[in-house]
Amino acid sequence: MATIVAPLQHSPVEDAEVIRKACEGWGTNEKALISVLAHRYPHQRLEIRKAYQDRYHEDLIRCLESELRGDFERALYRWILDPADRDAVLANVALKNGKVDYRVIIEVSCTRTPEEFLAVKRAYMARYKHSLEEDVACHTTGDLRKLLVALVGVYRYDGDEINAKLAASEAEILHHAIKENEFNHEEIVRIVSTRSKTQLLATINRYKDTHDISITKTLAGNRENVLVDSLRAAIRCLTDKGKYFEKVLRNALNKSGTDEDDLTRVIVTRAEKDLRQIKDLYYKRNSVPVEQAVAKETHGHYEEFLLALLGN
Amino acid sequence: MATIVAPLQHSPVEDAEVIRKACEGWGTNEKALISVLAHRYPHQRLEIRKAYQDRYHEDLIRCLESELRGDFERALYRWILDPADRDAVLANVALKNGKVDYRVIIEVSCTRTPEEFLAVKRAYMARYKHSLEEDVACHTTGDLRKLLVALVGVYRYDGDEINAKLAASEAEILHHAIKENEFNHEEIVRIVSTRSKTQLLATINRYKDTHDISITKTLAGNRENVLVDSLRAAIRCLTDKGKYFEKVLRNALNKSGTDEDDLTRVIVTRAEKDLRQIKDLYYKRNSVPVEQAVAKETHGHYEEFLLALLGN
Repeated sequence: MATIVAPLQHSPVEDAEVIRKACEGWGTNEKALISVLAHRYPHQRLEIRKAYQDRYHEDLIRCLESELRGDFERALYRWILDPADRDAVLANVALKNGKVDYRVIIEVSCTRTPEEFLAVKRAYMARYKHSLEEDVACHTTGDLRKLLVALVGVYRYDGDEINAKLAASEAEILHHAIKENEFNHEEIVRIVSTRSKTQLLATINRYKDTHDISITKTLAGNRENVLVDSLRAAIRCLTDKGKYFEKVLRNALNKSGTDEDDLTRVIVTRAEKDLRQIKDLYYKRNSVPVEQAVAKETHGHYEEFLLALLGN
Repeated sequence: MATIVAPLQHSPVEDAEVIRKACEGWGTNEKALISVLAHRYPHQRLEIRKAYQDRYHEDLIRCLESELRGDFERALYRWILDPADRDAVLANVALKNGKVDYRVIIEVSCTRTPEEFLAVKRAYMARYKHSLEEDVACHTTGDLRKLLVALVGVYRYDGDEINAKLAASEAEILHHAIKENEFNHEEIVRIVSTRSKTQLLATINRYKDTHDISITKTLAGNRENVLVDSLRAAIRCLTDKGKYFEKVLRNALNKSGTDEDDLTRVIVTRAEKDLRQIKDLYYKRNSVPVEQAVAKETHGHYEEFLLALLGN
């Protein structure tokens, strides 16, 4: 369930006016921006952008870019975008920032539904005039490339059918390859990148039943290996994304210095999806409400904005 | 341009009645079937199927299956299907018939537009409860698998932008890998499987300008190698599909014994697309109208049906 609190009815024109006023003159009224934008669903934000464009002949996003600085700006900018477009931007930034942030590529390709991810690929092409597959292949090499290109390439089957015999045989294929430290074995990439999420879950459950240890725990022993770390992240994203996001939040908040990129990304992308469940998982695991941890580690308008998205 | 001749207006109910009558009693009136079905556009055939179902509470395809035998049946059955669904069936048959017919997988993944191919992938999942990627990965191995999975996986960018610098550098990457006989070089797979058709065409043009020989001719020297043959087919499908289809037709008709699978596939899948251009290319290359070659190599209702689709 989502965490954002938004009215069923709103006036896009009035919202646009509030935003215009908040940006006018010297300084910006960030509180006013948050009071409107943090409390609108994606389609409502789209309507506001349209109303703003019609009324002031200026793109709302460009206007905000010139007004805001730092973590708050980045968070608000991500938030305003349509979810598919936002994921396209996240993936592009992950590829272009010198060092490829493979975790973001895995997160975007494996936690979205096949239809959502398809929309991301369309948005990526519309924005960058390249396919996402093309850019991932271009900015990575070796085994990591093989895995990432396969993960972004697949249009995964979304049905609920489970083939138990297949789960058993593929659990053994995985076990054997991992036991031999053949993490780049093409069968691992095939199974993780092409099977439906339901089928893959059946396979890793079977793995656990047979070998008394989960496949992600087995892989955790080799976490400094980028390929193993990626495989592990992909399996976690595909089979238990709630737990995966809780962990990203926990790591981001516990880091000395806080990882604002990860923190913003999880809250912004999940606020209108399943942030409520992620919050529950966080509380269960850390015995502290995530709002409290966020309030402790962030400050100012950035803090206010994240807390608004968290449902405060 | 398409070759089929169909009326703008038709009555789906009357068409269904003609078909019913043609199938009733002892024997089948194949001529009547051809006179209706060979002269209807995809959406019209869909309306006929619906009208037939409503009126006779029976699926038209099942009814025809019980009436028809051999090449004519297979051709008519392929023809009746919606184009995306038909491609899904073609791909599935190519994968499941013991030996994988990689040429069909390449043809379907590389000659359709990105949107058309996406529809094929959706149709495949709806029909077989697996993704096409999954089944291709499952039924192939080694280098061929790498190439085919990449080709079916990609959602290719469809824009017209050309990056000339990139074309030059990637032409050199291709040239170097081919010169060293490294046909399984991951850069070849990356370039062929991820670049837009327009960009790839610029790259192979550049290759030809620099090296005075086309890349497909260079590859032709190693045609008995399945991977090289596949790469060559993919490049031809992606950059000049008309010429590719002409060649498939020519080979199918010139073979001793005629390759009915290839012949049917090209005529049925292109009749409502670009069969007119393919016919022109065929005439230019062979100095014989393709209708004449088809009439010589086939007979009976199968011949009549193919000729009808060819626009006779």
